Amino acid sequence: MAILEAPFQLDNNSQPWTPVADGLRRQVLAYGPDMMLVRVEFEQGGIGARHQHVHTQITYVESGVFTATVGEETREMRAGDVFYAASNVWHSVECLEAGTLLDTFSPMREDFI
Amino acid sequence: MAILEAPFQLDNNSQPWTPVADGLRRQVLAYGPDMMLVRVEFEQGGIGARHQHVHTQITYVESGVFTATVGEETREMRAGDVFYAASNVWHSVECLEAGTLLDTFSPMREDFI
Repeated sequence: MAILEAPFQLDNNSQPWTPVADGLRRQVLAYGPDMMLVRVEFEQGGIGARHQHVHTQITYVESGVFTATVGEETREMRAGDVFYAASNVWHSVECLEAGTLLDTFSPMREDFI
Repeated sequence: MAILEAPFQLDNNSQPWTPVADGLRRQVLAYGPDMMLVRVEFEQGGIGARHQHVHTQITYVESGVFTATVGEETREMRAGDVFYAASNVWHSVECLEAGTLLDTFSPMREDFI
């Protein structure tokens, strides 16, 4: 894919939002072959269903309150908190108070573009 | 290094801050072999001097106002803005109004731990 041959920096204020599920949507902010940054906006009650993928993921809570489960561990997360999900580790989030997560993936999520 | 054998998730509120230069300091939030998330706090006037590294970098402006130069391009960045610096691309930032950047690197910055 041509788009993988050069890193791509987006004008993120004009990037489209993609619905993910009831109460959450995502916006790709930047990516290159080995990393992608995605903003995920949640309404209260929005659920990122339990899933896994080969990509390593670091998630940063920009705002809101969430319950996150990574592997066997569940914790409440607020602004400034972070979780790390290694390759193929199952993870999920539930939004307790509306807010935004920043998800970074390595390598990039080709399925998001 | 043993620490590279397993992803490492930090209790980021208790992580140490490392001075980087006058007016800026960093805090490692999470990392594994292929990715690291670092919070960088700037006072007004703080300068992240022009540098390059093999790691791909995505930087997200959490708060504050910055001037960032990546390669030959310079732009003003505010909360929610992002830049992408590919491997070995020269980049720098100057803080115009105090705030915080989130830097993600791939692979992890071994020199930061």
